[in-house]
Amino acid sequence: MRQPGRMIPVLAGLVLLAAGSDATRGQAPRSPLVSPEVQPDGKITFRLHAPKAEKVVLNSGEMQAALKAASTPLEKGEGGVWSVTVGPLPPGIYDYSFNVDGVVLTDPSSPDVFGNRRGSRGFVEVPGPKGRPRTDEWRDVPHGVVSIHWYTSAATGVRRRLHVYTPPGYGKEADRKYPVLYLLHGSGDNDSHWMLIGRANVIADNLIADGKAVPLVIVMPDGHVRERPPGELDDKPRQEIRAAFEKDLLESVVPLVESAYRIRTDAAGRAVAGLSMGSAQALAVGLGNPEKFAWVGGFSGALRADDPVLARLRSDPARANERLKLLWLAIGKDDVGLKGKRDLDAALKEMGVKHEYHETEGAHRWSVWRQYLAEFLPRLFR
Amino acid sequence: MRQPGRMIPVLAGLVLLAAGSDATRGQAPRSPLVSPEVQPDGKITFRLHAPKAEKVVLNSGEMQAALKAASTPLEKGEGGVWSVTVGPLPPGIYDYSFNVDGVVLTDPSSPDVFGNRRGSRGFVEVPGPKGRPRTDEWRDVPHGVVSIHWYTSAATGVRRRLHVYTPPGYGKEADRKYPVLYLLHGSGDNDSHWMLIGRANVIADNLIADGKAVPLVIVMPDGHVRERPPGELDDKPRQEIRAAFEKDLLESVVPLVESAYRIRTDAAGRAVAGLSMGSAQALAVGLGNPEKFAWVGGFSGALRADDPVLARLRSDPARANERLKLLWLAIGKDDVGLKGKRDLDAALKEMGVKHEYHETEGAHRWSVWRQYLAEFLPRLFR
Repeated sequence: MRQPGRMIPVLAGLVLLAAGSDATRGQAPRSPLVSPEVQPDGKITFRLHAPKAEKVVLNSGEMQAALKAASTPLEKGEGGVWSVTVGPLPPGIYDYSFNVDGVVLTDPSSPDVFGNRRGSRGFVEVPGPKGRPRTDEWRDVPHGVVSIHWYTSAATGVRRRLHVYTPPGYGKEADRKYPVLYLLHGSGDNDSHWMLIGRANVIADNLIADGKAVPLVIVMPDGHVRERPPGELDDKPRQEIRAAFEKDLLESVVPLVESAYRIRTDAAGRAVAGLSMGSAQALAVGLGNPEKFAWVGGFSGALRADDPVLARLRSDPARANERLKLLWLAIGKDDVGLKGKRDLDAALKEMGVKHEYHETEGAHRWSVWRQYLAEFLPRLFR
Repeated sequence: MRQPGRMIPVLAGLVLLAAGSDATRGQAPRSPLVSPEVQPDGKITFRLHAPKAEKVVLNSGEMQAALKAASTPLEKGEGGVWSVTVGPLPPGIYDYSFNVDGVVLTDPSSPDVFGNRRGSRGFVEVPGPKGRPRTDEWRDVPHGVVSIHWYTSAATGVRRRLHVYTPPGYGKEADRKYPVLYLLHGSGDNDSHWMLIGRANVIADNLIADGKAVPLVIVMPDGHVRERPPGELDDKPRQEIRAAFEKDLLESVVPLVESAYRIRTDAAGRAVAGLSMGSAQALAVGLGNPEKFAWVGGFSGALRADDPVLARLRSDPARANERLKLLWLAIGKDDVGLKGKRDLDAALKEMGVKHEYHETEGAHRWSVWRQYLAEFLPRLFR
């Protein structure tokens, strides 16, 4: 049974598969429909077999801006197959689901499905123009390795998991120590999603291959150390959860990866960044421990004005300015958290804490966070 | 666009989540329903919000035998929520989907979703009785690491991926070389699924902790080297695909892992096994190259009577008997491939090739393959 506050292991996955018919061996494929189908011009056709449905719509937060609509109706055709063609869409990665008479449905034909804490969704990719691949697109360059570790947390006493990216060539030079980025996910995700959806490894591979980023190790821990009781608005649990997160990160994750990998342990060789919930965590742990992290990135999420970390920062901004090499903040103009981030920018300015603040196109979405990682990595460890 | 016969890059993943409400930050959870809900006695309740549906049924191949039914109807209750309680079910891992008025649906409430080439499904786990966990259940023992590699294949020229399990303690003894099992997936899956669904790493962790298996490295490559043209029944493409698979395995995968890991390169330190399609591949590459692999396992899948590998074996069975330390075959009594496997057993007996043949309860399913791996690993490298 599942109960709030109890930790149980769960499993979810994403697959991006080899294309083509798989009908020649074993059981028949689940659906013979091709969906989604990406055209060379960036148009995408979605199809669903739902003979008894009265209404089928396509929902996609990521496509919303390009399509200028929150949802797009499909039309019923022959044999009970509903379909719609949208676009052309700009190059990028788009997640989507169907809504069939009020039921949210993951496209059963999609070979590309991922799950997170919000449920599962299909996704579809529009490649960059020939010769100009996206920064988050797989290219024919040397690839790093992503390793999955399981450990028992000092903070919680239970099994947790983390992902580690090591760059191409890692392990070839016995004495080389790599700088390390601790990269934190958002509240809907876990430690796998910066790889699965965020393409952190692909972005790093591409930037390293182009000489735009320093070869580095990226540690992607699980940010959900403790569940917040449902509906809990009191600040105490929030601070307790953050304390548990920092204990897990600093007392379990950091020692584990420093024991298993040849990585730097000085602040100048350590960065911490995150998106949304992970942005708040990165800002708190980074600004709260400038002797441990000299590079801090906050993608979308902010800190509340009454956050104790900001109070400590206000009492001694010189300490942060001496130690921090980069405090990099960015948020999309359509992000629901825009005001909070602007307030943080204003508070840091008022304290005189050196930082960069970027407002970009986009909302609270992975398309924005991939772009931020691609802008942040080249700034690190220089 | 997706076209039969064209290979595109593949990716898959696993997430290990904290359970409980996630409604306190950012967007609302996709569904407030708890589904599936496992009771302490092994009963499971499934729920789906589908106010306009006329008929909702639960489909689960894995539950079918226990429930004595291929599908189970849900009943409509208050607020358009359909539900059904089934079981008690024996300890195990069960995959399932819903069928809503003819549309196959992955449970949107399930935190545990995986996708493969057949589409996505939810899954649910019934733990073993207190103090007697299943062999494929996470336990508080030292855990190995699973690493994901991407490489360009000599056989295909395109990017492919593989997973590698290293046992607890790997890397602590600088000069130790580990024996290695090459473990192949079935036609519906890819290189991630022995970890995601097959729990190969968990099974190995548990058997190693109990001293029942020798610490080993497990290499899980992608078996889909080339797509078979749809409807192609000619034998020529089948042999070409197998040749491409063997070229990829022996000329790309083996050199990659022997360069990246401290593993044995002698036949006595190398095993190959697989399930279904991967069983046929393992039997072909193992029996065809006894100077490279001394331990061979075939779970469910067989070789056709006219297979060239069997013809070569027939011409010199003494060579196989001298070199093979174990040829281990198993299949479930309800497997659709039972006759083919019995024929293989008979052919090997007739040739005088030493082997073990096991017929077990079960069908062509992951529950059986996890059990076979748990029986096969303790036999290796002794």
